Amino acid sequence: MIEDKNQQRTQLSDLGEFGLIDHLTKNFKIKQSSTIKGIGDDAAVLNFENKKIVVTTDLLVEGVHFDLSYVPLKHLGYKAVIVNLSDVYAMNAKATQVTVSIAVSNRFPLEALEDLYAGIETAAKIYDIDVVGGDTTSSNTGLLISVTAIGEVEADNEIYRKGAKPNDLLVVTGDLGAAYMGLQVLEREKEVYKVNPNNQPDLEPYTYIVERQLKPEARKDISKLLKDLNVKPTSMIDVSDGLSSEIMHLCKHSGLGCDLYENKIPLDPQVISTCEEFNIDSTTVALNGGEDYELLFTVSQDDFLKIKGNPNLSVIGFMKESTEGIHLVTRADTRIPIKAQGWKNFND
Amino acid sequence: MIEDKNQQRTQLSDLGEFGLIDHLTKNFKIKQSSTIKGIGDDAAVLNFENKKIVVTTDLLVEGVHFDLSYVPLKHLGYKAVIVNLSDVYAMNAKATQVTVSIAVSNRFPLEALEDLYAGIETAAKIYDIDVVGGDTTSSNTGLLISVTAIGEVEADNEIYRKGAKPNDLLVVTGDLGAAYMGLQVLEREKEVYKVNPNNQPDLEPYTYIVERQLKPEARKDISKLLKDLNVKPTSMIDVSDGLSSEIMHLCKHSGLGCDLYENKIPLDPQVISTCEEFNIDSTTVALNGGEDYELLFTVSQDDFLKIKGNPNLSVIGFMKESTEGIHLVTRADTRIPIKAQGWKNFND
Repeated sequence: MIEDKNQQRTQLSDLGEFGLIDHLTKNFKIKQSSTIKGIGDDAAVLNFENKKIVVTTDLLVEGVHFDLSYVPLKHLGYKAVIVNLSDVYAMNAKATQVTVSIAVSNRFPLEALEDLYAGIETAAKIYDIDVVGGDTTSSNTGLLISVTAIGEVEADNEIYRKGAKPNDLLVVTGDLGAAYMGLQVLEREKEVYKVNPNNQPDLEPYTYIVERQLKPEARKDISKLLKDLNVKPTSMIDVSDGLSSEIMHLCKHSGLGCDLYENKIPLDPQVISTCEEFNIDSTTVALNGGEDYELLFTVSQDDFLKIKGNPNLSVIGFMKESTEGIHLVTRADTRIPIKAQGWKNFND
Repeated sequence: MIEDKNQQRTQLSDLGEFGLIDHLTKNFKIKQSSTIKGIGDDAAVLNFENKKIVVTTDLLVEGVHFDLSYVPLKHLGYKAVIVNLSDVYAMNAKATQVTVSIAVSNRFPLEALEDLYAGIETAAKIYDIDVVGGDTTSSNTGLLISVTAIGEVEADNEIYRKGAKPNDLLVVTGDLGAAYMGLQVLEREKEVYKVNPNNQPDLEPYTYIVERQLKPEARKDISKLLKDLNVKPTSMIDVSDGLSSEIMHLCKHSGLGCDLYENKIPLDPQVISTCEEFNIDSTTVALNGGEDYELLFTVSQDDFLKIKGNPNLSVIGFMKESTEGIHLVTRADTRIPIKAQGWKNFND
């Protein structure tokens, strides 16, 4: 939240459209053998031979999905890629390419876009994907990023939201709720900063949760882990909107119900302590917080011994017939129906 | 430009995110054999077997690329798809799928989005493509549409911007400048309407050029036409930014120069008469107007007899060594260097 008043500002209008794209993407290297032609023609040309491909797309809008007063542009570029890769991994596919389009107002200097693209490039490097296209245009107001991700999957290895069977175990990777609590901390510090701009925020006690919000990672590792464990999930989804919403998707697509055990939901100690500090229920945060980018999947009970005790995986419930409904089984052993939280974006 | 004050308005916030996407895409049918799974999972799943695929993406931003005071939303949805398909056809590929993401402010009722999606659906039907994914989110201001198009191409049939050889003929499909002049007419009528809202515009003399602006078509037919004529272009690009910009791309990528003959540029009579009425030079309009969505390509001189006299194709120049430069040869037989017009979007 410290602004450098002396930063260099190059006007976007100083470069042409093609100059801008060339400038921003000149460091991007092609690494995937499936990329025949990346940026620089009417379209990218890809060759997946006999593999199936998966395609997913997401929009991030300033003021709706991110607040530039505390999100560094480099992190934003990184996150915009990650949220799409997470959807690719949720299909059990290997992410291979992305296209990145941005609409940006004149108030952004070239250096800001360089930061954004540095984040995109870092994500591409770490996740071993090629940036093969995109569009750059002006907007009348803020910044908008549209990413489309492409992945490849061997024949019949893809995993859908449908496919879960009654009695299958419900499993989640990592831990939940951290990104949401990181956002609460950042929002609070923003209010403090507004009152006293000289007050330097101490984010030390919140390192993990703030990083989960600003620089989330996608679970590239899970596909290999499951293969090594010789486990093939029967259904899978990524946790972007909150655990309750994702459970409802799996149940709806698979035509099932589910029991979710509150005491099995994996929470980082920093989430628990920050929830106490903010006086928020940690289960509610895990259920509805979102932006975890973990994977939620179902496996046959026969696979229980293969995944039991794995530090990356938590069994949090099991699937039931649809007539049984979808419930949270609380620590007090009461059963509460899980409901959709709906979509808050369009509310005023 | 006639507003129906009694139109039905359903608030977007009345539907959840998933309700909205389900509602808008419920009529979309899957027709392509390459589409294994369309909308409704973390990602679409596609199977192109041994074919290569092409991927292209474009952003359309309200106030930059379109003005809703004279662009009907249905036409806008149609056009957003078309501009991407044009890029697929410019690779000599067959368009097969699109994803469509929109960011939209609360001022749009559900019925407006239904119109937009009706246009998308119409384009999908006419061009035989599947809508396989997308994202719908709110924006703080206007409307933004991000489309990614995917196409398939048989091995080694793709055509790039590079590949033209000296003495190759430069060929363009259809005619140029109409979409730009249609925009001039619409802008003029908007000003008239502002002064006197009761004045009904008479667009009858401008039917063709207004349609080229509001409801452009992409040249799906050209790939088959060239195959039937047994002609394989050496390079190809679509005309979206204006003929001069596209010629410069072909020259740059192929490492060549070019002579373009002013008297060979195909112009519709309505473009010529409207240019006279507006006192604008029609060659300038063809060179810099843009949004024609025609295809520009080069062929070997050996193919001249195959394309000569075809009503869809005009030979407008020929390629030269790069040292010869890129020139317009005027009707008065003077040679004028063709320069890039740059990108006006980021200028104030």
